[in-house]
Amino acid sequence: MRTVHVDLGERSYPIYIGSGLLPQAGAYLIKHGLSAKSPHLIVTDDKVAPHHLDVLKSSLEEAGFRLVVSVVKSGEGSKSLQVFEEVMTSAIQGGLDRNSSVIALGGGVVGDLAGFVAATYMRGIAFIQMPTTILAHDSSVGGKVAVNHPLAKNMIGAFHQPEFVLYDLNTLMTLPPREVSAGLAEMVKHGLIRDAAFAYWCKDHAADLLALDLDALGYGLERGVAIKADVVSQDEREGGLRAILNLGHTIGHAIEAVAGYGEFLHGEAISIGMAGSALLAEALGRGGELHKETTAMLKALNLPVVLPDHLSEDDLMAAMMHDKKFKENTMVFIVPDAIGAVSIVKDIPQQLVRDILKQLRKGGETHV
Amino acid sequence: MRTVHVDLGERSYPIYIGSGLLPQAGAYLIKHGLSAKSPHLIVTDDKVAPHHLDVLKSSLEEAGFRLVVSVVKSGEGSKSLQVFEEVMTSAIQGGLDRNSSVIALGGGVVGDLAGFVAATYMRGIAFIQMPTTILAHDSSVGGKVAVNHPLAKNMIGAFHQPEFVLYDLNTLMTLPPREVSAGLAEMVKHGLIRDAAFAYWCKDHAADLLALDLDALGYGLERGVAIKADVVSQDEREGGLRAILNLGHTIGHAIEAVAGYGEFLHGEAISIGMAGSALLAEALGRGGELHKETTAMLKALNLPVVLPDHLSEDDLMAAMMHDKKFKENTMVFIVPDAIGAVSIVKDIPQQLVRDILKQLRKGGETHV
Repeated sequence: MRTVHVDLGERSYPIYIGSGLLPQAGAYLIKHGLSAKSPHLIVTDDKVAPHHLDVLKSSLEEAGFRLVVSVVKSGEGSKSLQVFEEVMTSAIQGGLDRNSSVIALGGGVVGDLAGFVAATYMRGIAFIQMPTTILAHDSSVGGKVAVNHPLAKNMIGAFHQPEFVLYDLNTLMTLPPREVSAGLAEMVKHGLIRDAAFAYWCKDHAADLLALDLDALGYGLERGVAIKADVVSQDEREGGLRAILNLGHTIGHAIEAVAGYGEFLHGEAISIGMAGSALLAEALGRGGELHKETTAMLKALNLPVVLPDHLSEDDLMAAMMHDKKFKENTMVFIVPDAIGAVSIVKDIPQQLVRDILKQLRKGGETHV
Repeated sequence: MRTVHVDLGERSYPIYIGSGLLPQAGAYLIKHGLSAKSPHLIVTDDKVAPHHLDVLKSSLEEAGFRLVVSVVKSGEGSKSLQVFEEVMTSAIQGGLDRNSSVIALGGGVVGDLAGFVAATYMRGIAFIQMPTTILAHDSSVGGKVAVNHPLAKNMIGAFHQPEFVLYDLNTLMTLPPREVSAGLAEMVKHGLIRDAAFAYWCKDHAADLLALDLDALGYGLERGVAIKADVVSQDEREGGLRAILNLGHTIGHAIEAVAGYGEFLHGEAISIGMAGSALLAEALGRGGELHKETTAMLKALNLPVVLPDHLSEDDLMAAMMHDKKFKENTMVFIVPDAIGAVSIVKDIPQQLVRDILKQLRKGGETHV
């Protein structure tokens, strides 16, 4: 088993990564001092529940924990205030008190929703993450939890760190190939922002990663999580440095918003976004063959790197201007300096972004 | 002008108390470094707005601030997730960003609602309190913000400290007498838990306070706020000591819940609750004439001290068992040791609480 410590002072916590951890969940709750006198709430979704809920429940009940379970519908639609209120109702009816915890069993949607419940139930109770996707290696570090507002994604949320994260690699074995690739997009992103060797490792081990080889997955997730943890520990509340984690996300979020949530998986959208960031870097005079190198990595992981024709530049630009990463109407981008290093660049001219979108539609060919 | 500093490390903030502060609000926002480049959201209610909104808007606009205004319906009903979402919609449509603030102009309901918006909009932006009730001297210190769930009050919330509190005594001049008394209940409570001299001062100056004499109000609010600030600074997240602020609240919340919100003002309900706590103290062998002394203070402020007949003991007991102050089914009460000192007492037998309710219905006479 691998353990990564997220260093956040009194809010520090460990991430346990390994095979077969879910059947030991009860022991981990006890180890972390959770009270068997208080009920605990498992939040999961209707796609994850059939595979993993019984295993988790058995482990916790055998360890003496009383459980309340809330199964939400799979998908982004469950990150709504309506579903949030339903989960709150389960928590209240189940008698959760201040010594209770909320356990997220699932991917990013379940983690964000359950985490926001934990952050706000009685003004905050314990939160435990049990991710079941590769993508969630990203969202389970950093304490960002949220639900969506009909007008904007992740607009209602909090920073709420988990007590611990239990990452059972066996839960990843049933992921469809497209979700595997999309999850690996965030993994290689962590290499692209801080660790060139790891970025190249992801490319070199793409076949193993796509085949869900346990050794490759374990190392890749440990490294991805550790890089994110290092960034977050230096900037818990997203005051500055933490923005580098948004490499590819400005264009990526715009693609998701314009296409409508569902057409692109988050990892696919940010893959195109990272290809766009590489083009932007080259336009700003950053040397090397950033776009060629970056897209080679992404393509090795079966990820898209070309902006589809049906997403209009006007719509994408409008979506970007609504993005909460823009302060006071200036445009901010995370721009690669080289593979493994990025800068936060402010005051990027809007016209340049339009040009990049045009190049990105042609796969970056026009700039060669 | 009087200033009380709430000492919470990097989340410390000042409370400014005085007459005529609202027309200077713009200068205070500038002094506290709020950005005129970002829009700011005023949340107020339809009873406060006609009296004070224009004054506040003028001051802020003259200082160069762009404003978004959300006027909610007066009353506890606005502390709902529905109204919360409406205010969030205003914030998003108004283009609030991470440098924006949410300004609460009103009493406790507006403060709790606006504070929860500030705590969760983009995972937390600046919050400014401008209380317009005496009761809000209590809720404006300590950072507890929340909305209600249909099944339980204040169940969904956060700890979110304001940048500063601007307490303009002139806004109190239009308060109806019943609200004045209810607000003074929290003021004398602060004396009862930590400062006997101040509790007696409240009684001795009851006439001045009820007549809204500026000197008496200014001193009383300063002292009340300072006591609360002292307690909160020792226990920001309500881990232990802070519970003493709940003197009278266990029975008080049950009265509010059983009567239906609206029949009793919060201060009236906790006044009866504080009379009950004094009876409980005597039943537990605390010496002195606690009930007689306490009720004399409360009656001087025109507050009720007798439990009305139409609230059944069974309903009140049931409501108390739902109260989030009970951990793991034990009953916890804040019990006076003397005027000006209280203890947190755990494992109070339920039968004793029933007996106290019976005595309280007769104004405490049965125990004499």
